[in-house]
Amino acid sequence: MDTAVTAHQHETVELAFRGRERVPVGGAAPVTVRFRHADGEEVVVPGFWDEDATYLVRFLPGRSGAWTWWIDEELTPMEPRRGDVAVGPARTAGAVRVAHRHHFAHADGTPFRPVGGTAYNVLHQRHELRADTVASAAAAGFNKLRFMVFPQAGDSVEVFPDLMPFEKTDGAWDVSRPVPAFFRRLDAFVRDLDEAGIQADVLLLNAYDRGVFGLDGLSEAEDAVYLRYVIARLAASPNVWWSLCNEYDQLERPEERWDRAGLLVMAADPFDHPRSIHNWVHLFDHHRPWVTHASIQNGSAVEEPGRARLYRDAYDKPIVLDEIKYEGDAPARWGRLSARELVHRFWIATLEGCYASHGESFVLPGGSLHIVEGGALRGESPARLGFLRRILDALVVPGLDPVDKWDDPEHVAGGAPDQYVRYFGRSAPANWRVRLPIDHAGASVRMGERYVVDIIDTWNMTVTRHGTVTIDEVLRDEAFAGEALLPLPAGEAIAVRITREALAG
Amino acid sequence: MDTAVTAHQHETVELAFRGRERVPVGGAAPVTVRFRHADGEEVVVPGFWDEDATYLVRFLPGRSGAWTWWIDEELTPMEPRRGDVAVGPARTAGAVRVAHRHHFAHADGTPFRPVGGTAYNVLHQRHELRADTVASAAAAGFNKLRFMVFPQAGDSVEVFPDLMPFEKTDGAWDVSRPVPAFFRRLDAFVRDLDEAGIQADVLLLNAYDRGVFGLDGLSEAEDAVYLRYVIARLAASPNVWWSLCNEYDQLERPEERWDRAGLLVMAADPFDHPRSIHNWVHLFDHHRPWVTHASIQNGSAVEEPGRARLYRDAYDKPIVLDEIKYEGDAPARWGRLSARELVHRFWIATLEGCYASHGESFVLPGGSLHIVEGGALRGESPARLGFLRRILDALVVPGLDPVDKWDDPEHVAGGAPDQYVRYFGRSAPANWRVRLPIDHAGASVRMGERYVVDIIDTWNMTVTRHGTVTIDEVLRDEAFAGEALLPLPAGEAIAVRITREALAG
Repeated sequence: MDTAVTAHQHETVELAFRGRERVPVGGAAPVTVRFRHADGEEVVVPGFWDEDATYLVRFLPGRSGAWTWWIDEELTPMEPRRGDVAVGPARTAGAVRVAHRHHFAHADGTPFRPVGGTAYNVLHQRHELRADTVASAAAAGFNKLRFMVFPQAGDSVEVFPDLMPFEKTDGAWDVSRPVPAFFRRLDAFVRDLDEAGIQADVLLLNAYDRGVFGLDGLSEAEDAVYLRYVIARLAASPNVWWSLCNEYDQLERPEERWDRAGLLVMAADPFDHPRSIHNWVHLFDHHRPWVTHASIQNGSAVEEPGRARLYRDAYDKPIVLDEIKYEGDAPARWGRLSARELVHRFWIATLEGCYASHGESFVLPGGSLHIVEGGALRGESPARLGFLRRILDALVVPGLDPVDKWDDPEHVAGGAPDQYVRYFGRSAPANWRVRLPIDHAGASVRMGERYVVDIIDTWNMTVTRHGTVTIDEVLRDEAFAGEALLPLPAGEAIAVRITREALAG
Repeated sequence: MDTAVTAHQHETVELAFRGRERVPVGGAAPVTVRFRHADGEEVVVPGFWDEDATYLVRFLPGRSGAWTWWIDEELTPMEPRRGDVAVGPARTAGAVRVAHRHHFAHADGTPFRPVGGTAYNVLHQRHELRADTVASAAAAGFNKLRFMVFPQAGDSVEVFPDLMPFEKTDGAWDVSRPVPAFFRRLDAFVRDLDEAGIQADVLLLNAYDRGVFGLDGLSEAEDAVYLRYVIARLAASPNVWWSLCNEYDQLERPEERWDRAGLLVMAADPFDHPRSIHNWVHLFDHHRPWVTHASIQNGSAVEEPGRARLYRDAYDKPIVLDEIKYEGDAPARWGRLSARELVHRFWIATLEGCYASHGESFVLPGGSLHIVEGGALRGESPARLGFLRRILDALVVPGLDPVDKWDDPEHVAGGAPDQYVRYFGRSAPANWRVRLPIDHAGASVRMGERYVVDIIDTWNMTVTRHGTVTIDEVLRDEAFAGEALLPLPAGEAIAVRITREALAG
C-alpha cells in the first residue's frame, strides 16, 4: 500500500505504521524508513513504537522537492510499505547548526544567537505552569529553553511527577515499556516551544534524581535504549538540541560512559542537531568529535571581560555559558545576582564572542524556584535580555568575535571591517573617541570609510543613532574615527555599535 | 664481545658501536638495543649514526640495579653484541614528568616548577654567547630554556649560522646526511644546561626560517627522518623537553601534520619527556593524547587574574604560558613590557595555577634581542623571577591551584588546607583580614587550626615572617583567621603566604 503526503521543507513529516504485533522497545528500531530525494540524497530514519502495535517515523526534510520512501528494515511486518512525500518550499528557517566556527545559524543560513532560559523540571509541572513557562519565555524574547526529560528531586522541588517515562517490571524501571502519555507530553512541549520560536535544549539524562526516582540507576544499556527511543521521537523536531546532562559530574560515572552516550546520540539522530553536555566542577572534554558546542557552567568566566574568550580558543567551537549564576534571592551564592549584574554578564558574554543562558531563582511562596518549575518570570533581567536578543538579531555580521582577541584593552567585538560593538560595562565615561582595533587575521578598516554610530543603553533598552563618523587614522593595531569625542549618556552599561554605512539599516 | 659499564640512575649511559659500513640515516634506526633490568623491565632504545661507521645508543636508566643489554636489531653488523650496565643509586632527581594533573615533578617525585627563559637562536651563536646564555639563565634562577634546533632568519637576526644540521645533495638538504659537528654542539648545549640545572625546552622545528635556509621546506617524510635522529640523540638527556614548534601556525601546514609529528615524537622517545607545541594566533588542540602540557602564547591570559585558570579546566593538563610578552624596549607591542609588569604577570600566572616563561627584548647595539641570540640579561625582571622560583621551590604542596576556582574574588591559590597564597597585585591595601576560601572539592580548613603567615614583597624580594594566626570562623565558602587585621607593607605586588604551622619551615 502506498501513501502520499504533502509537507514543507524544515517541518516534521510523520508516517504511521500498523505492525502485526507489539515489539518491545529495545536495541533495534522497530521500523526503519529510507527517504530518497529526486536528486538522489538519502536519509535513513529510525522509527519508534507509539502504542499498541502502532509505530511512527518522523522525518525532517532538509530539501524541498519530491521524496520517496520505503521500509528499509522492520522487526514486525508493517503496512504501508512505501510512499511519496511532496515537500514544498520552506516557510521556516530550519534546524540550528554550528556556523562560522563560534556561532550558530538555521539551515537556511539565518543566524541564530541563543539567548536562553532555564526551567529544569518544567515538564513535570501541571499543564498551566508548562504553558506559562513557554509564554513567559517567548514574551521575554528567549529563543532557547533548557529542561530535563527525567524528573528532578531534592531541594526546591515541590511536585511529584504524575507521569513517569517507563512502566515498571518487577518493581524496576523497564525501558522496553515507555509510557506513551509521558512522551506525548514531551512531544507537545517541544512543539509548543517551536511554535513560540524557542529551541528546546533537551537535557536527556539528569544528575538531580538523587536516587529518589531511580532513573539515575539505569544501566548504560538501559540508557542506550531510552536515548534511541527519545531521539527517534524528537529528532525530526526542527527546534531540538541535545544536552546529555546538566552538571554531569555530579553523577559518579566515568567520562567514557558519557562519551559513548554522546556518540550514540550523534549516530541516532539523522538530522544532526546541536549536541553538548554541561558541567558542575569538571568541564567535559568538549574537543570530543560528537560535541558540537561547549556548554559550560562558570559564572566567573563572564564576571569580567577577557576570560570567556579563552574557551573559544581552547575548544574551537561555539561557547554557550549555560549557567552564569541566576537573578534572584536564593540563599546560595549561585542564586542571588541582581538583574543588573546578570544583564551585565550577558553583555560580557556577547562581547567575548560567546552566548549565555538566563535563570531566575527568586524563592517562590512554596519554596520552589523558576529555574526548577518555570512559570511566570518575576525578574528585571528578562526584558533586557529580550532587548539584547533584538540587538543580536539586527547584527549585519554572522556573530560578534573579539576583533584583536588578546590585545585590545577595550575588548571590542565584531566582524571587521563591517561592524563593531564596544561595551563600557561598569565604567561610565562621559565620552569616547571612536577607536576600532585592527583584525590582524582578517579584513580591516580603511581610511576614509564611513561608519554609522548607535548608542545602546543596555539597561534602559534604547538605541539612539548618533550619526556617522569617518576613519581618519589607521595605525598598526588600531584605527580612529572622528576628532570629536563621542558623547555618552550618563549611567553604566552603555554600548556603542559602529556599522559600515553601506550596511547600516 | 661483551662490555660492562657503570652508571647512575637518571644519568645518561652511552654505548658506542662500530658497524661494518656507514648506513644512511633514514626510516629505521641503524641499531636498536634492548635493556633489561634484573627485575624484568625492558626498554627498547633506538641508536643513531654518529660519524663514519660509528653508532651510538644512549640510555637513561630510570632504575638503579643490574641492567643487561643486547642488540635487538641492526642495519649493519655491529660490535659489541651485548653487555651489562651496573646502575648505581640516583645522584639527581631525574627527568621531569606531569604530576598532580596541572603540575610537574622529577622522576623521584621532587616537584619541578618551571620558571623559564627564552633564547630562540642561541644554538647558532658563537661559543661565548652560548656560554653566557646558560650562565646568565642559571644566575637568574631560570630552570628551563626555550631554544630552536634549526636557525632563525628575519628580523633581529644578526648571525648567519656557521653550522647547518644536514649536508646538501644536489643543492638540497639531505636529511640522510646529518652534520655530526652540528649535533654535537646541540648535545653539548643540552648537557651544559643540565649541568646548570636547566631543562632544555627544545624547539624541534621552527616557523622563522622564512625560506632563507629552506629548512621549513623539508617534506613530512624528511621531517620524520630528522625527528627520529634528533630524538635518538637527545632523549637520554635527563633535562630534555620537546616542543614541536614556536608559533606553529605561522607555517601553513594542516594541523594533522603537526599531530602526526607529535605522535612520532612520542613513539620515538623511550623516556617519555614532556611534549607540546606553541601557538601564534590559533591554539593547538592540546587535548591530543601526545600533548603532555599546553604551551600557550597569550599574554592577556595573565594580565588579570581569573583568566588563565580557564585553560586548566579546558585542557586538564599543566599550562605553561610560553610567551606573555617580553621585558624590553622593542618597537612592537609584544616586546615592551616593564620589568614590573612582567613580574606581575608571572605572579598572576602562578596564582592561576599555571607557569610562564620570561623573555627579554631590549634592542641590542647590533639590532638583535636577547630572546633571539641570548647572552647576558639586562633587565630587572630576572632577579625577581629567580626569587619567585625560590618561593615555588619552598612550597609545601605539590603546586598552587585556585582553591575555589570560579568563585573567590581574592583569587587565593594553594593546596587546601596546607598552604595558601594571596597576591595583592596592583592594589596596595594597608591591611588584610586573613581569609581562606573553602575548597569545595577537597580537604578544607578546620576551626582552631594554626597557620604561619609570611609577607612576601615580590619586587623587593623579601619574605617577612608575620607570626601565626588561628582559624576562628568557618563559613560555607570561606574561613577567617585572627580578628586583628594583618598589616601589609606599602607598595604594590605584595603576597601573603599562609602555611599550616605543622608544615611551616
